[in-house]
This record gives sequence, structure tokens and C-alpha cells, in this order.
Amino acid sequence: MPLTYLHTMVRVKDLDASVAFYKLLGMEETRRYDSEKGRFTLLFMAPPDQKECPVELTYNWDGDDDLPSDSRHFGHLAYSVDNIYKTCQYLMEHGITINRPPRDGHMAFVRSPDNISIELLQAGQDLPPAEPWSSMENTGSW
Amino acid sequence: MPLTYLHTMVRVKDLDASVAFYKLLGMEETRRYDSEKGRFTLLFMAPPDQKECPVELTYNWDGDDDLPSDSRHFGHLAYSVDNIYKTCQYLMEHGITINRPPRDGHMAFVRSPDNISIELLQAGQDLPPAEPWSSMENTGSW
Repeated sequence: MPLTYLHTMVRVKDLDASVAFYKLLGMEETRRYDSEKGRFTLLFMAPPDQKECPVELTYNWDGDDDLPSDSRHFGHLAYSVDNIYKTCQYLMEHGITINRPPRDGHMAFVRSPDNISIELLQAGQDLPPAEPWSSMENTGSW
Repeated sequence: MPLTYLHTMVRVKDLDASVAFYKLLGMEETRRYDSEKGRFTLLFMAPPDQKECPVELTYNWDGDDDLPSDSRHFGHLAYSVDNIYKTCQYLMEHGITINRPPRDGHMAFVRSPDNISIELLQAGQDLPPAEPWSSMENTGSW
């Protein structure tokens, strides 16, 4: 039975903050649905050349504190980037903590405003080690 | 700065049980990496025609109970299917609970062995309402 990947959904507490964060990563809004009746907004964001791989941000207008908190072992969303140093520099300049700096020129982790772990991987060959990344310590978990 | 979607990662307690589950959904193993040193396995599974949209199963050989459990508001993985009734029937026959039956011929939810919420959506037009789905109650949350 065929199946087709559609999206990964994450719940967000502050839609504007999340849209700003995913835009920082380079994603664009591809679709939005506001439900007056259900009092929620679904907002899809995807890499510009990959409209078929969106993250769906679910925003409940009245909050989601009453949702079951049974941790579902979600790991992260992963994206490759052209230059992981430039991406991390750009994110830092916009106030994002690099939880796992790309000391190896290969991999970094950051967190979304809702603590969603985001993995960034250098596309193609790893970059040569470079400061300030080589000596940057980890911050928290990811 | 361009970015490319790579995968959604979920942590699993029992690799075999999870592989069996994702195979039931129609996915295939696309890549596997066993790390003797790190004592973990990464196993990628994707829809046969969408190798570029895998879920990454992370299996820590010594368990992952010591990981921080700060819920990250992960929602679900979503897939479209050709016939949502046939898919749900097949899953039920293999012991999977349909937490949210496709009463509307459009949408269903199940859970992976690690409680990952999986959304199934009817591709194209919704199917006409049909039993046993129309009168099937919800089970738990998703």
C-alpha cells in the first residue's frame, strides 16, 4: 500500500516567534489555515526548493497546556545547509543559542522557541575546523 | 542561505518492533548505521518512492532513560495513503490500535511502539463513510 510523506508537525506556543525562527533557518511559509471554529492555526513552512517537506506548526489559540504530555520520543528535525559556519553565525547574531556548535565543521544543534531540537548538517564535505567554533562549548542538551 | 530537509528523527526502545511497525505502514529501510563505539544504531525508513523523506530511528543499545524528558511539543509524522480504510484494516489485523478511526473517510491516527503519533490522510478525495469506521469510537489520545 503506497504512502507519501507529508510533513512533520510540532506544536507551538507563540506562532510569530516560531515563524520568525523557521524563517531564520531559511524556510518559507507555504500554506496557512486558520480555524475560527476549532480556534487553531496550522502554518506550513518548508525549504524554498522543497515545498514537499514542510514542518507544520500547530498553534492552539487557547494554549495547549491540557494536552497529554506523554513524551513521544521525538528527536529532531534535520536540515542540510550550504555553510554550517555561516548559518550558525547568522543564527547567533539573531539571538539563537548554538547548543551544539559545529566544532567538526559538520554538525550543529539549535532549539526552536518550543524546544524542538533542530539538527543542521554541512552539505557535502565537512568544512575545515575554524574558530570560534572549534573551541566553543556545548550549551544544555539538544 | 539554502537548506534541505533530511529527515525526522524519533528515538525507539525496541528497534525490531519499530522497524516492523514502519514496514506495516509501507516504508522501507533505506540506510542503516551501527556504531560499536557510540553503542547506537541509526536506521532510516522511507516511503519507497520518497527516499528523500525518511524517518530516522535512533536506537541506543543501552537505553535512553537518562535523556532529558523536556517535552518538545512534537506532534506527529504524517503520510498520505491510497485507501485509508484498507490501510487501517491492515494495521488493525496486525494488532495496531486505530486511536482515531477514519470516520470521515479522510483522517486516522495511530501510535508507533514508542508512542509517536502518526497521522494518515486519504490521498485525493475523501472516501464515502463506511462501517465499521463510521461508528468506531476514539481510543486514547494521539
